[in-house]
Amino acid sequence: MLALTILGNNSAIPAHGRNPTAQVLQTNDENYLIDCGEGTQNQLTKYKIKKSKINKIFISHLHGDHYFGLIGLLTSMGLLGRTNDLHIYAPAILEQIIQLHLDAANTSLPYQLYFHSLSEEGEISNDKKITVSAFRVNHRIDCFGFLFTEKKKPRRILAEKVKMYEIPEAFYGELQKGNDYVTKKGTIIANEDVTEAAPKPRSYAYCADTIYDESICEKIKNADLVYHETTYLKDLEERAASRFHCTTTQAGNIAKIAGAKKLLIGHFSSQYEALDNFLSETKEIFDNTEIAYEGACFKV
Amino acid sequence: MLALTILGNNSAIPAHGRNPTAQVLQTNDENYLIDCGEGTQNQLTKYKIKKSKINKIFISHLHGDHYFGLIGLLTSMGLLGRTNDLHIYAPAILEQIIQLHLDAANTSLPYQLYFHSLSEEGEISNDKKITVSAFRVNHRIDCFGFLFTEKKKPRRILAEKVKMYEIPEAFYGELQKGNDYVTKKGTIIANEDVTEAAPKPRSYAYCADTIYDESICEKIKNADLVYHETTYLKDLEERAASRFHCTTTQAGNIAKIAGAKKLLIGHFSSQYEALDNFLSETKEIFDNTEIAYEGACFKV
Repeated sequence: MLALTILGNNSAIPAHGRNPTAQVLQTNDENYLIDCGEGTQNQLTKYKIKKSKINKIFISHLHGDHYFGLIGLLTSMGLLGRTNDLHIYAPAILEQIIQLHLDAANTSLPYQLYFHSLSEEGEISNDKKITVSAFRVNHRIDCFGFLFTEKKKPRRILAEKVKMYEIPEAFYGELQKGNDYVTKKGTIIANEDVTEAAPKPRSYAYCADTIYDESICEKIKNADLVYHETTYLKDLEERAASRFHCTTTQAGNIAKIAGAKKLLIGHFSSQYEALDNFLSETKEIFDNTEIAYEGACFKV
Repeated sequence: MLALTILGNNSAIPAHGRNPTAQVLQTNDENYLIDCGEGTQNQLTKYKIKKSKINKIFISHLHGDHYFGLIGLLTSMGLLGRTNDLHIYAPAILEQIIQLHLDAANTSLPYQLYFHSLSEEGEISNDKKITVSAFRVNHRIDCFGFLFTEKKKPRRILAEKVKMYEIPEAFYGELQKGNDYVTKKGTIIANEDVTEAAPKPRSYAYCADTIYDESICEKIKNADLVYHETTYLKDLEERAASRFHCTTTQAGNIAKIAGAKKLLIGHFSSQYEALDNFLSETKEIFDNTEIAYEGACFKV
């Protein structure tokens, strides 16, 4: 399982019943939380996503609509009895902010918090099934996107074929790695005759808040699912640029150039109540687009 | 008009659809915000309370469930175009916390924020119609309650009587102050013959988070409306004390000793989903009690 649930899709302030940015990428083992606007803990409860399975939180940048819900979530996790380690990947100053909040309450968290300062691009997390790398995007303050990539899976053994060729089970591990089997008589059984390739590792690219910048396309190349902000409709390209944000058309272009399979759009300005035009405008450029509605779950 | 609207009534974490503590005391001129748990800005929107009429915010103490919504509200006020001054009354360290959040976003607020550190008891705010004083309560960290008191109003002029005695309008101001009128012939018209006393100034006492402490009764004496926490039902008195909180019975006692006209109870532990027993237990001690349900509005 690799699926993304949207917890918030509005920019700057909560409005029209929409919450500030937060998303959770779920595997069978882990819930990766991506940004954490105010109210995220309520949204996690609402959409029945287990806080106890969140072990890593990725904060793209320190505009409030992307992290004001973090201190509440961290505190609640403690009050709910968490003892497992928690890792936060974020710009450095957030560590001071968290500490100051804890100092003010004369308290500490009952679990170990590991803070990883984001400062360079590259791999930042490496779990059993997923690696995460950070890449810079171009915003008014330091801001990072995150690329979540499944690890390459072993080749799949074809049960009938290995039986037919009488390959011993002890050799299955080698087959999964792609090695050929050599019988006692010296006959070579080609790996591709008894295995098939595993499905291609999937990837999700979260592009955070950014001005239009084609240089990110290389970093998220061929991602199965790309989230790109569309703060404004296409007629407000100048306003978007002045605020280091993007329009529908621009998000569509990024997805197209990057060779994305699917595009999710979000971070809508509060000046828009209806979202229909966001979808139609983006689809003009990149057809396989969906709106990051809150509560919606997208398979990667 | 003097009315209190409840925005949040749960303790520690949001649960059962209940939000952390926040209340707003409304006069015709001002909305006084009292504590500001996470999600307060959404609750203000939900209950149609104008953020633009909030000019003073009172934060009792720096446990997260009483202030984690503040930075989001301050930021949103700025994004919504606020230019009016805003005053915050809170323990000193909150000023650093706010500044660090602003620094992290490399931003400033577009309005003037005046921070008033709470450190001593006594009057902290004096507006046209309302004075506010802070009083210490006994909690795990520095914590203050707030007493909102209407100013004494001028005596009311009895229109028929002033006409009958032919008192000139120029003297009405003196009558309102309680002075007698002396006619040109030297006859004294007693003030009470031509005016009546204004209604007694009303008062609201917010007792924040506190262990059972009868010494606060003197500070909130005869208040028309008293809010007192009831984190636990009466069977958990020991747990309440160990956490510097109170039970239903204790809140009832405080209201009784203080001579309150009405008692509001809130700050319910998340271990309780239903609240009925809070009301019945408190009423055993102090009958005129109501539950501080979210969205409920109480005339003071």
